[in-house]
Amino acid sequence: MAAIDVVIMAAGKGTRMKSRLPKVLHRLAGRALLAHVVDTVAGLDARRVVIVTGSGSAEVEAAVTGWTKASGRPLPAFVRQEPQLGTGHAIQQAAPALPDDGVTLILNGDVPLVEAATLQLLIDACGGKRLALLTIDMPDPAGYGRIVRTGEAVQAIVEHKDATAQQRELREIYTGFMAAPTAQLKRWLSQLKNDNVQGEYYLTDVVALAVGESTQVVAVKAADQVQVEGVNSPLQLAALERAYQLRRAREFMEAGVRIADPARFDVRGSLQCGQDVEVDVNCVFEGNVSLGDSVTIGPNCFIRNAAIAANVRIQAFTHIDGESDAVTIGEGAIVGPFARLRPGAQLGPDVHIGNFVEVKNSTMGRGSKANHLAYLGDTTVGERVNYGAGAITANYDGANKHGTVIEDDVHIGSNSVLVAPVRIGRGGTVGGGSTITKDTPPGALSVARGKQVSISDWKRPQKAPK
Amino acid sequence: MAAIDVVIMAAGKGTRMKSRLPKVLHRLAGRALLAHVVDTVAGLDARRVVIVTGSGSAEVEAAVTGWTKASGRPLPAFVRQEPQLGTGHAIQQAAPALPDDGVTLILNGDVPLVEAATLQLLIDACGGKRLALLTIDMPDPAGYGRIVRTGEAVQAIVEHKDATAQQRELREIYTGFMAAPTAQLKRWLSQLKNDNVQGEYYLTDVVALAVGESTQVVAVKAADQVQVEGVNSPLQLAALERAYQLRRAREFMEAGVRIADPARFDVRGSLQCGQDVEVDVNCVFEGNVSLGDSVTIGPNCFIRNAAIAANVRIQAFTHIDGESDAVTIGEGAIVGPFARLRPGAQLGPDVHIGNFVEVKNSTMGRGSKANHLAYLGDTTVGERVNYGAGAITANYDGANKHGTVIEDDVHIGSNSVLVAPVRIGRGGTVGGGSTITKDTPPGALSVARGKQVSISDWKRPQKAPK
Amino acid sequence: MAAIDVVIMAAGKGTRMKSRLPKVLHRLAGRALLAHVVDTVAGLDARRVVIVTGSGSAEVEAAVTGWTKASGRPLPAFVRQEPQLGTGHAIQQAAPALPDDGVTLILNGDVPLVEAATLQLLIDACGGKRLALLTIDMPDPAGYGRIVRTGEAVQAIVEHKDATAQQRELREIYTGFMAAPTAQLKRWLSQLKNDNVQGEYYLTDVVALAVGESTQVVAVKAADQVQVEGVNSPLQLAALERAYQLRRAREFMEAGVRIADPARFDVRGSLQCGQDVEVDVNCVFEGNVSLGDSVTIGPNCFIRNAAIAANVRIQAFTHIDGESDAVTIGEGAIVGPFARLRPGAQLGPDVHIGNFVEVKNSTMGRGSKANHLAYLGDTTVGERVNYGAGAITANYDGANKHGTVIEDDVHIGSNSVLVAPVRIGRGGTVGGGSTITKDTPPGALSVARGKQVSISDWKRPQKAPK
Repeated sequence: MAAIDVVIMAAGKGTRMKSRLPKVLHRLAGRALLAHVVDTVAGLDARRVVIVTGSGSAEVEAAVTGWTKASGRPLPAFVRQEPQLGTGHAIQQAAPALPDDGVTLILNGDVPLVEAATLQLLIDACGGKRLALLTIDMPDPAGYGRIVRTGEAVQAIVEHKDATAQQRELREIYTGFMAAPTAQLKRWLSQLKNDNVQGEYYLTDVVALAVGESTQVVAVKAADQVQVEGVNSPLQLAALERAYQLRRAREFMEAGVRIADPARFDVRGSLQCGQDVEVDVNCVFEGNVSLGDSVTIGPNCFIRNAAIAANVRIQAFTHIDGESDAVTIGEGAIVGPFARLRPGAQLGPDVHIGNFVEVKNSTMGRGSKANHLAYLGDTTVGERVNYGAGAITANYDGANKHGTVIEDDVHIGSNSVLVAPVRIGRGGTVGGGSTITKDTPPGALSVARGKQVSISDWKRPQKAPK
Repeated sequence: MAAIDVVIMAAGKGTRMKSRLPKVLHRLAGRALLAHVVDTVAGLDARRVVIVTGSGSAEVEAAVTGWTKASGRPLPAFVRQEPQLGTGHAIQQAAPALPDDGVTLILNGDVPLVEAATLQLLIDACGGKRLALLTIDMPDPAGYGRIVRTGEAVQAIVEHKDATAQQRELREIYTGFMAAPTAQLKRWLSQLKNDNVQGEYYLTDVVALAVGESTQVVAVKAADQVQVEGVNSPLQLAALERAYQLRRAREFMEAGVRIADPARFDVRGSLQCGQDVEVDVNCVFEGNVSLGDSVTIGPNCFIRNAAIAANVRIQAFTHIDGESDAVTIGEGAIVGPFARLRPGAQLGPDVHIGNFVEVKNSTMGRGSKANHLAYLGDTTVGERVNYGAGAITANYDGANKHGTVIEDDVHIGSNSVLVAPVRIGRGGTVGGGSTITKDTPPGALSVARGKQVSISDWKRPQKAPK
Repeated sequence: MAAIDVVIMAAGKGTRMKSRLPKVLHRLAGRALLAHVVDTVAGLDARRVVIVTGSGSAEVEAAVTGWTKASGRPLPAFVRQEPQLGTGHAIQQAAPALPDDGVTLILNGDVPLVEAATLQLLIDACGGKRLALLTIDMPDPAGYGRIVRTGEAVQAIVEHKDATAQQRELREIYTGFMAAPTAQLKRWLSQLKNDNVQGEYYLTDVVALAVGESTQVVAVKAADQVQVEGVNSPLQLAALERAYQLRRAREFMEAGVRIADPARFDVRGSLQCGQDVEVDVNCVFEGNVSLGDSVTIGPNCFIRNAAIAANVRIQAFTHIDGESDAVTIGEGAIVGPFARLRPGAQLGPDVHIGNFVEVKNSTMGRGSKANHLAYLGDTTVGERVNYGAGAITANYDGANKHGTVIEDDVHIGSNSVLVAPVRIGRGGTVGGGSTITKDTPPGALSVARGKQVSISDWKRPQKAPK
């Protein structure tokens, strides 16, 4: 079996995107188009990966280098196509990086959803000696290059504009993916001509060259159109995003996840679900999220980088964002509605986080509660703590962040301020409206408030007559 | 007219649901599939209802018993099918519970949206003497049992795998619903054989038995497919949920409700709407909700168990959950955005509840306002009260909940804490930042705060040089 | 070229809307149906605009007068059709207001999405001498009046019920729009008869009259059906709303805006977007909104009347409502999640507004932050200010609103109250939990709080045994 070398064409500008960003860096499901392709290639047993860059080459190369390092995979080779004189010209640039003894698999950096199994079929069809094309039947093939066959054998790819009326009836089109024995491919590439209106070198011309020297040309049909759709405009990007999300929703449902509306379900990254998970309408998942058995997610939640244990209930309008640091939520916890969990929030089992409560870089022990309008930052909370409505940890002194410790069984009164660094001793109570600046002893009631006085017959300001 | 006895088949495991929950307890529009069927049956004039349970029978029976008691209806009879040897076997288990003089109507606990009118047509078609089948024409009937007729008369239900090429062209299929004279049905049931690959007793075999003894077999076509669709997988559940929700949206629109996007509208329970109600995108209604004339609901609201009077404006991102205790909102009130109303919230006319405000188990008199970041719990608020930003009722002393009373025309200052039990006398003012622990006299200004001092040239902490 | 006079028929009751509101005042994309038509007419070079009112004429006229004044355009003429005896009768009422020397263009106040270019084609087809009809081919024309032609020339509009089987095959139907030379139109109008079942005068009868006197009748086909769809029911209104929103989403995407889900994107008014703008799922834009280059809008945002500069990040669940007074957000600012910006909020560059923060009628200088649970009202905030969690400006004394000034480099501690009118001097610090009622000197630490005391061995209330 010949070794596989992969070329990914990623030089296009993507004028119709109308963006400063190079086309292949536009994101589908939160990840660059090219990153999808690179990830898929990692599922093949490829010897080399060569990426042809052009428009925004430095930006593209930096991005690829970033993802690849993060993934721990070996870096691909980059070659630059400048100026950009067609798909054939792109592969010509890559040719010196491709050993003659292998098979070259050619992919497109703007066709993100091709599957490794499809690529493997293409490689197998090549078999180290044939030119293998990935094709698909389209209901409306207008504008695409048609596959002309004699019997099974492919004779040519005929561009739409050059096609006869009869050829235009053909619905099988070329997708832009091919696999070829590298030595032959290089020979054909060296014979490409640019005597056309655009003055470009077309990769598709290798078909005629292969046929001309009696190399067999075979076609493999892609299983579904989503795999071969490219992105050239925001409309195509949005359409492919929706196709992708519906496909993922279907996969989750087949695995048993109950999704209230598959058309309002977005996953941008990795989502692991246990049994009997329910997701209500209009939820978005990003990064790495895991949901344990019987987790329910209410409507309109946003969850990014979080590990959520079994039997947790996430209520409506909850915003969880672990950034690079996953938020963790223990079994049986109840979060929301209108809760915000930020990086470093680590909630123990049976914790309750209620409305208008923000938790950042804080751990909470089993059964502790912060149910109303509160902020916990840089705090270690013990078990069975009740953190009252409106309580705030003042963790920032204007220059540095400091930590707060709230020991087990403490009750923090409403609208308290805990000025860090400070420790509230086990079993203690902080009276409502107190600003606590010093550690408090265990079991004590600690208060810091003014004496209540009433001024009778006080006259409240009146509206001035107009 | 013969009496009607109903059998609901609810024994299936629903393997493809991949759930610990028995299939018929999965929820469509917030209610178990079987509950939909039981509710529909309540609209018939049935003598007996027999539910055949099997997988998770104890759980199913407990659930049915719970709903039925809550509804005040008589309990159905349960029979258990263990092991589960096919649909014919299921009805055999129910047979002893069915008096011979009646008509038996057979339903499926996993086909939730059949309508009572359709069932009545089936009963009428039976007429106490015929075997009546509910059928439907399907565009793609592959896999379903075809209805074979001679003229109008039904001759057989032919399983897809047993069908001739010609029979496979037939688009009329059997839906799983039938009505039959009970005495004859029992005779046919006793003659069922299980000499098939699965070793099961098929209810559909009664058709051949009826034809064999010259009982007339008739078919009634269901008006639309949604009525006869069963749920075997999360995909089918989601598809039926969407069909159901679109149907409800259409009904509300036909009644004059303006819905900004019928594809983003979910009703799980009962929703009553007055004239000129407007519902913006992505709202969810659960339980019993009533909306008076000219109520407007902003985008992304969640409303459960609430009675909302005329001319109320519910703004974006409002979460109302009355649980078992309906939230009530008086005429002309304005709620939201980002408001949370919890059980026992009873807002009078012209009340305003603003952003990041939570109200629980509290009444508010006409024209009172809590517009910003506040919590009201277990509180009785009079009329024309202004409840300031950040004000909190400290209603929980760590062990018990206590009540607060705020009389008419009171102004509560910002970030105040009212430590319950406490009463703020009529016309009084609580100064900002005060923690009030004792009742305050009417008309008084009450404060409890420290004296303001300034330490000049105080040096704020600096970031340590790195 | 003859002058153009426009008649808009706006008299219908719209019974199927089941609303107290006259039909033409129902809103599509946040604007009355009739307002869409009036706006489109403003794009023509029309001499006069006559609006025929009937049902709710006073309400309709007042509404039109309001918009027109707000737009600075000249007021249209109103004529009332009472009683309402058909479309021909409606135009008869308008006839006295139409000078004989012009061309009359007839529009429908409940067909909101016709485009000016289409109307211009119709006017051109009239050419001052022909009767020109706007038509469209419908896949299912059942119920509509068919266009019967001899060669190109229109011979008649035949009502569905009067059509022969052959005529019912015709798919070209009349849309309700026409242009005609006014003198001839008036003559035809005077000849209309009401000898039909409804006893109404039909405008479509002018076709036969024109043909009868050898006036040429021509038809112009509308480019797409959305332009000619009328609204008679909430279902039609919702369907047209969705068609409109998808059309707008497509236009924005063609201009380079990345929209995560075009089916969950609503624009009600004017939206200007720079380059590389991204809009996540389920966002709603109202009024006049502008988004600078590289602005990103997170999921589930509501934005009304706001000018948002380049590189601003609006995070999930942000609610911005400038009402008549646009909210402004400076370059590089970060807002949300769960932020609320109200009228008069003016944020400078690099400002951060975080969760559960409300800003109203306040300016914030470059780099200032209010990240957690806070309220800023009627406040002038300098640069680099840190406004702590839970801080509140008490801007309302029960009768009047007062202003607060927070100078550059101030730090406001958590849960502080700033009782307006008050000024916090440059570089000052307000200690957490302080209620500040007097101006504070620059550079000072100002506190107003009680002394912290702890009562040891205090026994927290216990739950009474039950």
